[in-house]
Amino acid sequence: MSEKITKIRGFRFAGIASGIKKNSKKDLGLIVADRPVNAAGVFTRNLVRAAPVEVSSERLKAHKKAQALLVNSGNANACTGQAGMDATLRSSEAIARALGIEPGLVLPSSTGVIGVVLPVEKIVDSTERLVGSLSEDGAMEFAEAILTTDRFPKTASETFKARREEGAILGIAKGAGMIHPDMATTLGFILTDVSAPSSYLRAALRRTVDKTLNRVSVDGDTSTNDSFYLLASGVGMKLDDDLKKRRFEEALFKVLLSLGEQMVSDGEGAEHAVTIRVFADTEKNAKRVAHAIGTSLLVKTALFGKDPNWGRIIAAAGRAGVRFDPARAEIRIGDDRVFHRGLPAMDEETEARAAATMRLPKYEIQVRLGTGREESFIITSDLGPGYVSVNADYRS
Amino acid sequence: MSEKITKIRGFRFAGIASGIKKNSKKDLGLIVADRPVNAAGVFTRNLVRAAPVEVSSERLKAHKKAQALLVNSGNANACTGQAGMDATLRSSEAIARALGIEPGLVLPSSTGVIGVVLPVEKIVDSTERLVGSLSEDGAMEFAEAILTTDRFPKTASETFKARREEGAILGIAKGAGMIHPDMATTLGFILTDVSAPSSYLRAALRRTVDKTLNRVSVDGDTSTNDSFYLLASGVGMKLDDDLKKRRFEEALFKVLLSLGEQMVSDGEGAEHAVTIRVFADTEKNAKRVAHAIGTSLLVKTALFGKDPNWGRIIAAAGRAGVRFDPARAEIRIGDDRVFHRGLPAMDEETEARAAATMRLPKYEIQVRLGTGREESFIITSDLGPGYVSVNADYRS
Repeated sequence: MSEKITKIRGFRFAGIASGIKKNSKKDLGLIVADRPVNAAGVFTRNLVRAAPVEVSSERLKAHKKAQALLVNSGNANACTGQAGMDATLRSSEAIARALGIEPGLVLPSSTGVIGVVLPVEKIVDSTERLVGSLSEDGAMEFAEAILTTDRFPKTASETFKARREEGAILGIAKGAGMIHPDMATTLGFILTDVSAPSSYLRAALRRTVDKTLNRVSVDGDTSTNDSFYLLASGVGMKLDDDLKKRRFEEALFKVLLSLGEQMVSDGEGAEHAVTIRVFADTEKNAKRVAHAIGTSLLVKTALFGKDPNWGRIIAAAGRAGVRFDPARAEIRIGDDRVFHRGLPAMDEETEARAAATMRLPKYEIQVRLGTGREESFIITSDLGPGYVSVNADYRS
Repeated sequence: MSEKITKIRGFRFAGIASGIKKNSKKDLGLIVADRPVNAAGVFTRNLVRAAPVEVSSERLKAHKKAQALLVNSGNANACTGQAGMDATLRSSEAIARALGIEPGLVLPSSTGVIGVVLPVEKIVDSTERLVGSLSEDGAMEFAEAILTTDRFPKTASETFKARREEGAILGIAKGAGMIHPDMATTLGFILTDVSAPSSYLRAALRRTVDKTLNRVSVDGDTSTNDSFYLLASGVGMKLDDDLKKRRFEEALFKVLLSLGEQMVSDGEGAEHAVTIRVFADTEKNAKRVAHAIGTSLLVKTALFGKDPNWGRIIAAAGRAGVRFDPARAEIRIGDDRVFHRGLPAMDEETEARAAATMRLPKYEIQVRLGTGREESFIITSDLGPGYVSVNADYRS
């Protein structure tokens, strides 16, 4: 269901300015559960992992539970060595002390410039004020506090029913696609009131991230700080049968897909969130081809130019390392077939309609390799001059 | 030796305007050997291959010899089905008839827009004029006739000595990196006066292309028409011992590297040709990391911004799928170490020097993973707004 919710039973939120960001914008966020709750996380696969990623993944592995999510923006605390690790540990100890809980139940995240040690004193000095402003209604303050180059905060929610019980999921994320590894790109905090073991939460989160966020590509880069968490307060529906689990995962899928689309739409200079859907003999092959097309610079600039350029699409598919016969392939932009049986299939009218589709903020390109009906997709953005100027000019 | 040469014994050249390009620029080129000569070619690995690629690779496989290289620009004759295949066959038959040779000895290449059948009548009508203008001194006319979006023609030459004999190589190419798959990107024609069997020529060409052109990346895309040829007139030095072969391959390497660098420099909006050199435990791992860095959008925009952004470089290395310990890694921009043992190593002076290096048209970035001394490199370009506007606006 699409009823928008802004709180989740069992959790309180806060977001304040602590001075890490120079412009006195909010830069410190906290989510606290009423008690230690089952928790799971997925983290960047990049070899270069920031201190908070190391600490949080270790703590999750050891305890499978968490009670506090502490997030700062403005500083990623990545590539900062032992001093950075000390800063991360000290900041979560300060929060633990203020909350009267074990430090191991605090999961820290950081996002911002890398190579600069987290200014931990600013966090320590703000601890009391941060904890003091916790509120059930504070989700939007939290959402603002975790932003870096984002143009808008990203939240998504779903409620769902099964066996006459109701459950709810609230997701809060930051990130403009994967476009800022040196801005420690993507952080996500998914909260639910269901009751489920950590092992199930981890499996469900991993499955769903793979079908949603891992298919979002702005530029194919991944960051030192990427982290997504799922915490279940356990006060609501108990996920004790398959129907409930299915409903829960459907809702989780919608929340994560929405957050992913919001990130693509927020890519600098991006005007379009384009789903590249590929049909092939296996899902794996479909995924490889979708990835080759969705990350092709030439395809992405053509999307920016609103140019139904089937040539770039078929050429990107042709180098994906997947066998198919171009003479049996087909490409559709929206509902219009622009390439068919190895030949362009565009009269002027079709081309005009395809170009009109490409002016929409959100549309789909389908590529059928002619080898089967297994499908996969990737969501990509157009690449305009805005991307270049933001990414060429930006640092620290 | 770097003495510049513009002809090669045993070959004649021509380049004329036939009307395929609308602006009456040269668009038809021909190289003819005095007799059938040993020949080799390497072709795009893209599954989608243009008609001339199919024809030329078949003919080379069958005959191992060639006598004429026919090239048109302005039309790639790719994705044009049977009609395109007929056009390619007819054009090379017309040339064969005019030269009085077998059609199987003519190797056709095309470059330009894809999806439009080659206007073969224009080539047929120009055959007499084309053959009539063949000359030993016509290499520059040929070089001009094969250009598409290139800003300048690309030639490179080397002479070399061994056992008191002398050999010469002349290379002519087109292509602004790999940036125009729908412009059927890279064509190269390497001529030499040495005498060597086709099997050796093929092996030497493949080896050398792998160490040079396959390391050139403007955007990682590959085209439907990429082809590189090596023809040996056989009137000069016989490559009958290892020293002569080594000298020949050293010269071939220089010619192909120079052509590759010229292509990178000609990338639209590109201001820098940057060598990304990586040291790792194996050459293969070094190559993977160099590729991940050299094709990273974020690295390429930082190169455009002349920003010594080690964070993007180490993050790109970290996602290459190669194991290393970031705490032992090192990054140098020119001679300046900007990242060392997992930490930034830049004081203001170092940063200023690194930024100065990045203003040069050509420089090197070294990444030492700390796992070994095996090396590989890739040559990449910066990504500026010019790239986006050319590639977003351009089509047919």
